[in-house]
Amino acid sequence: MTTYCCGIDIGGTKMAVGIVTPEGETVALCSTGDHVRHDESGVMDLAADLVRQACAEAGIAVSDLTGVGVGMAGHMRSRDGIVLFTSNLDGFAGYPLTRELSSRLGGIRIILENDANCQAWAEYRYGAGMGHDDMVFVTVSTGIGAGIIINGRLYRGRTGTAGEIGHTIVEPNSDIACTCGNKGCFMALASTLNLDNIARQKSQRLPTRMFLNPNAHPGGRLDGRHIMAHARDGDAVALAIINEYADYLGIMLYNIFQIFNPSAIILGGGLMNWEFGYFERMQDKFTALAGDMLHDPMTVAKASIGAGSGVLGAASLLLDG
Amino acid sequence: MTTYCCGIDIGGTKMAVGIVTPEGETVALCSTGDHVRHDESGVMDLAADLVRQACAEAGIAVSDLTGVGVGMAGHMRSRDGIVLFTSNLDGFAGYPLTRELSSRLGGIRIILENDANCQAWAEYRYGAGMGHDDMVFVTVSTGIGAGIIINGRLYRGRTGTAGEIGHTIVEPNSDIACTCGNKGCFMALASTLNLDNIARQKSQRLPTRMFLNPNAHPGGRLDGRHIMAHARDGDAVALAIINEYADYLGIMLYNIFQIFNPSAIILGGGLMNWEFGYFERMQDKFTALAGDMLHDPMTVAKASIGAGSGVLGAASLLLDG
Repeated sequence: MTTYCCGIDIGGTKMAVGIVTPEGETVALCSTGDHVRHDESGVMDLAADLVRQACAEAGIAVSDLTGVGVGMAGHMRSRDGIVLFTSNLDGFAGYPLTRELSSRLGGIRIILENDANCQAWAEYRYGAGMGHDDMVFVTVSTGIGAGIIINGRLYRGRTGTAGEIGHTIVEPNSDIACTCGNKGCFMALASTLNLDNIARQKSQRLPTRMFLNPNAHPGGRLDGRHIMAHARDGDAVALAIINEYADYLGIMLYNIFQIFNPSAIILGGGLMNWEFGYFERMQDKFTALAGDMLHDPMTVAKASIGAGSGVLGAASLLLDG
Repeated sequence: MTTYCCGIDIGGTKMAVGIVTPEGETVALCSTGDHVRHDESGVMDLAADLVRQACAEAGIAVSDLTGVGVGMAGHMRSRDGIVLFTSNLDGFAGYPLTRELSSRLGGIRIILENDANCQAWAEYRYGAGMGHDDMVFVTVSTGIGAGIIINGRLYRGRTGTAGEIGHTIVEPNSDIACTCGNKGCFMALASTLNLDNIARQKSQRLPTRMFLNPNAHPGGRLDGRHIMAHARDGDAVALAIINEYADYLGIMLYNIFQIFNPSAIILGGGLMNWEFGYFERMQDKFTALAGDMLHDPMTVAKASIGAGSGVLGAASLLLDG
């Protein structure tokens, strides 16, 4: 008989629930965007409903599940199942998520994990990181998250917040602030968090058409797709941003290499779709910095699973993460 | 019957050999400075002589040893026992140290490890890191080295060069170069490597008596003790350096915290003797950066073993490192 695990990815715009086999096949998938309009308890109710719905789609009972893995952005005290902090949704500070969700699902086993850790585990177990027992996964989009695999297990640290490489500081004198409250961390400088701010700074020195039409960017904020669109038009600020972001990510890869000497770094997130030499320049920067200190090849590859990795990773962490 | 291990610390000025019990007691210790005048083969001959001498002092035969652990600065491919690179001594590039030393000592088991990794292991097993199964040891002196303990084991990475946190880049636009070939890494900015250069830069903006007597600093290079002596006289450049170095080390602690979320960071090396608020300012910098992201206390403590930790760690890695 096949064992099934359930994975839940609670994001800032979408909550997705999938039923997953030990081979990594997602046999049922449900999602909603309604959860953002609910408080903690309402989000848990919706999550439990989606688990039941997904189980029905898969033709199994909730009691047939090995358990439910939940991935969420922010700081999770995974061993206690408590959300310490999440940036994607209101509330949840100190929220006992596993207890609350388990009570809605007949006492089933629940584990809670940071979303980037879930994605890291998915890439290690089923994706581009397969076979790399010491690897680091980094996702670059509206923030920078990471997950660390050591000796074939997810490394969590004391509280469970290990892997926040995005918040390591690389420009101590920068005036570019991050949501963490500090300035000059990689997340402030090389995710889409501050694209608008950084583009405006660059527009004082470089020609750009980015800010001619204030209605072009919904909410007034640039995102990664806008940068690509302007880069296609040859916009100098857009191209400068692509280069600068690539250089910072190259430095981050180098720092990860010096610290972990991993066999692979796997890169996910929306910015991995950037063109105009972004990925290649990042690799070149890393190679130039590492020089003859790189004694064995280190794989640098894009994540291969994509959007479903949060659900897949959360589910498969129940098996041996 | 007590089992004994032998530890060898091959440094740039001294080679020390100790016989160590499983309880961490060093029962015999020999050392020499002659090794710096020999080639690789001569250094191995001297090391083997010291092992025999230390065993004689301890009243045991070489064949009574469980094995010999060797610690050395630089890049060690520990699983193969090969020195890839060392900055402390001429030669040794690609040198099969364990094979060569073992052949001089009747085929005894030898393990080779980076010196900071040995010190980390000593502090974890017998020193300030006891009980902290996820910890990072950092030593700050003429360079910055580190060793990482994960789940009670030394973490080495693919080649064996993990833990080179000193070479992570924190000032990408710095003009201060490191021996690694890059600019703006912590080792360039916060070890004694570039004290002279950094003090001269600061002397353009701050009053100092540091460079009045060119004979005051042997070899023309400032070291950590000179900075302390000048700081005691209230020298503005010396005090500015202490503050700046403390801030960089505080940023490094913060970066280590974000990456590893360890239960302890243990700090060793000559700069831990600096006064005038160095250690306290470093802690304050870390605390300010970590803010409410630190959910559980993290121990920040000075190493407790001191000068013998290289020998002790190299020896005790044979037991369960």
